[in-house]
Parts: sequence; C-alpha cells; structure tokens
Amino acid sequence: MAVLRLLLAYDGTDFRGWASQPGIRTVQGVLEEALQRALRRSVHLSVAGRTDAGVHAAGQVASFEVDSAVDAPRVQRALNGMLAPEVVALDVRVAAPGFNARRSATAREYLYRIDTGPVPSPFTARFVWHRPGSLAAPAMRRAAAPLRGEHDFASFCRAPQVPASTVRDLRRLAVAVRGDRVEIRAVANSFLHQMVRSVVGTLVAVGEGKVDPDAMGAILAARDRSTAGRLAPPHGLTLVRVAYSRRGGPSPLSRQPGAFR
Amino acid sequence: MAVLRLLLAYDGTDFRGWASQPGIRTVQGVLEEALQRALRRSVHLSVAGRTDAGVHAAGQVASFEVDSAVDAPRVQRALNGMLAPEVVALDVRVAAPGFNARRSATAREYLYRIDTGPVPSPFTARFVWHRPGSLAAPAMRRAAAPLRGEHDFASFCRAPQVPASTVRDLRRLAVAVRGDRVEIRAVANSFLHQMVRSVVGTLVAVGEGKVDPDAMGAILAARDRSTAGRLAPPHGLTLVRVAYSRRGGPSPLSRQPGAFR
Repeated sequence: MAVLRLLLAYDGTDFRGWASQPGIRTVQGVLEEALQRALRRSVHLSVAGRTDAGVHAAGQVASFEVDSAVDAPRVQRALNGMLAPEVVALDVRVAAPGFNARRSATAREYLYRIDTGPVPSPFTARFVWHRPGSLAAPAMRRAAAPLRGEHDFASFCRAPQVPASTVRDLRRLAVAVRGDRVEIRAVANSFLHQMVRSVVGTLVAVGEGKVDPDAMGAILAARDRSTAGRLAPPHGLTLVRVAYSRRGGPSPLSRQPGAFR
Repeated sequence: MAVLRLLLAYDGTDFRGWASQPGIRTVQGVLEEALQRALRRSVHLSVAGRTDAGVHAAGQVASFEVDSAVDAPRVQRALNGMLAPEVVALDVRVAAPGFNARRSATAREYLYRIDTGPVPSPFTARFVWHRPGSLAAPAMRRAAAPLRGEHDFASFCRAPQVPASTVRDLRRLAVAVRGDRVEIRAVANSFLHQMVRSVVGTLVAVGEGKVDPDAMGAILAARDRSTAGRLAPPHGLTLVRVAYSRRGGPSPLSRQPGAFR
C-alpha cells in the first residue's frame, strides 16, 4: 500500500463545499467519482481544508491510499481530463507511507480578498467580495493584533464544537491594502468552522467604524459567537496553501496560480 | 439632444457576442433592454468594438443619444443594479454633441492571453486560452514585424468584406512572455472581423514551429484567408481600450480593471 497526494485548485462557485453529501454536488464528490472511474475502485479522500460552499482553493491537499502500482502522472491526466478547469490537479504524487492530508498538515493559509472600489469587476467577481467604500486599514490591523497566537476562538466559530476544543493557534493575521483591494491573510495550525469568514466580517465592521478596534480582546474573551461581526460571504475566500513537516511526507508547498500572488 | 457615453467591462463567456440578434443573448441586447427599462424609452447603442461570441471587454465604449435631462450617475447605478458583475458600467457621462462611440474612435486595443503551463488555472480559465507547451517568442516577434503598419489584411479576415476595404493600420503588435503567460497586444485604427484571433492563431503556429516566421510577409501579400493559421479561440481575447481624439469628445481613456494590468 502507498498513499497518493493530490495538490488541487478549484473554483468553488458551483459546489456546495468540499465534503461529500448524498445527491449534492461537492468537490470531494466529483473528485472521488472521477478517481473511481480512473482507478476502477472506490476511493475515500482525506483533505487538509474542508472548504465551505462557495469557497475556493488554490493549493488544497487531499490524499488516499492506493496500490503501490498506481501511475501518479496518469491519475493527474485523467482527473484534469474529466474535471479541469473547474477542478485542477496541479500535482499528483506518491507520498511517504503514513501520510494523511488532514492529520499530517501542520498549517493552513487562507486569503480573503475584498474589492472596495465603486463598481465590481467581471473578471474577479467570482473570487473577490465586492464591498464598495474604503475601509480603515489601521483600525483593522489594531483589531487583528489580539487575535494572533493561541486562543479559544469560540466567538469566531459557527457552532461551538462542544466538546471538541475551540482553541487554535492563529500564527498570522495580516491586512494588506493595494488601491481598492483589501487582502486579509490568515495562517493557523487549523481553523474552526467559518472562522476565517467570521474574523474577516468582524475586521470589516471595524474598518467601517461600526466596531471599536479595541473591543476585539473582549469579543475574543467572551467566547460567544453573538459578540463577533457578520460572516463575510464565502466567495471572497480561498485556501491558498497547506504546510507539512518534512517528517510527515514530501513537503507539498502549494504552488499558487498567478491570480493569487 | 445630448450623447451619453458608456465605458463598459464584461465577461463575454455567456454572450453570443456584442451585436443584437433577435432571440439571442448578446451584450448589446441586455444593455439596450436595461437602458430601456431605466429610461422608459428605446435606445440604440453605437459601439467601438463589435466583439464576437465569447470575447470579453475591459474598456469597451458605447454611446447613444438622449434628452439632455438624463442623469448619468443614475443611469450607471441602474445598469449596474441590473447587470453587474457580468456587465459593468465603469463610467457613464454626457459626451460632446456629435460624439459617436464607433465613428469617433481613433484606435482600438486588444489583448490576447495564452497560458502555456501544463495545467489550466480555475481562476483565469474563462479569460485565458490554456494551450500547454512553450512557444518560441523570438520567432513570434519576428513574424509579427511585417504585419505592423498599414496593409491589406484580407488574409486575416473571416470573410473578405468585399467591396469594403480590408486595409487597416496595425499600429502595435507586441508579444510579451512572463513565465507561462504569453500576451499578445494589438492596436489598430480598427480591426476586421476575427482579425486579432486570426493573427494570434498564426503567431501561435509560428511559435510552435509549424509556420516559418519569415513566411508572414507572403501570407499577408496573398490576401487569402486560407494562407493564415487557425483561428485562436475567442475566450482568450479582451478589448481593453478605445482611444478618441480630444476633438471627438471627452477623452475616454479606458480604465482597466486590475486583472488587465
């Protein structure tokens, strides 16, 4: 037995998220069906980031167990022949024994993109949240600071995952502005359900002057979802990268398609 | 009477081109319908570039005659409320009397984008032709040189527009390469039907080594469509800019959405 590792990019617009659900079009569903057709056996994928409906990926990682005889380049060609360009296998390779896309991952990086210009662009509208009107980036950066580090993020989680832990290590949370484009980048060991969209929604409320940037510490401490801002819409969010330790298998540092530099 | 000038961007994927046709979804058709709803009167648009099915625009210009009482910002909001983000009114303003988007235009600029990487990107696939395998840019540049200037481009025109002239002034034809991306930029006083896609298809055949770069002069001189290469697909092509002389009205130098820098 061996493990096959897939590096994936997808446009999440027309999917109801990653996770398989009977009768519903999901990324996992179409991938497992395509793999079954290519390999003539059923496949169950493990994945680094279970993206929600409408969320995209530029460097998602999935894995499954295979016979060691599997020809990785042939699997890549077969997947792209069936699914590209909506879902693209950027790379397919045999990983070290024991590699698991979810369990072996040491960090996930998400990018949230906001267009604050007066009108949307037809060329980026599928991947960027058009929210006209400038945002106060310095206030957003001040609000972001207390979120960095290891905290209980229950205030930024859709449904408190009791009894599972809601503690996560948010290693990076950066707000960048270039012209009308605001980009929020978040790196953590892992993320709670809707955590990035909840953090982004709250930072946007701060940038609009509706939430005091110095209130962020209290919102975090409350451990209560109702204290945080509105959820940002899913289509602005992209999983850009997954990190693995060298021990956990070959280091699959995600390539990023040009649009995500 | 006054003239209203529209600066437009659109994703041409789901349109059968610009020009109105009964019972068919075209950019002109949806715009005229939206304007009719906003202004409660029928409108006929003049346009700088009659883009083909699947071709996009980042800086298209259209115009129509209006009562001088028309509120341009209100028209812009109404159009974007009905059509964005697929079709976006980047700017709407009252132009000088006599301005006509087609007749007043002095030059059109088109951009053709090719992705030569091994796999497509889900984020650019609607706007970029994925054609895997590198292209010999120096040969393409050598082939482009004899096309520049005023020539009879009948060899690069879908159906010879007899008795209309097929002479055009191709002021710029440039081939740029950055990594896997090849971009061909063309500026002319005006273009024949399918001229850019025909020139790009022939340059790609040169870049693949299938056509001798030094054959381009003979292909041009033949004035016979069968001598040029295959037509490049429409989705890689975008009308990026239209130029006007100052006399012809306010200079509507197209803003370009970020994706087209």
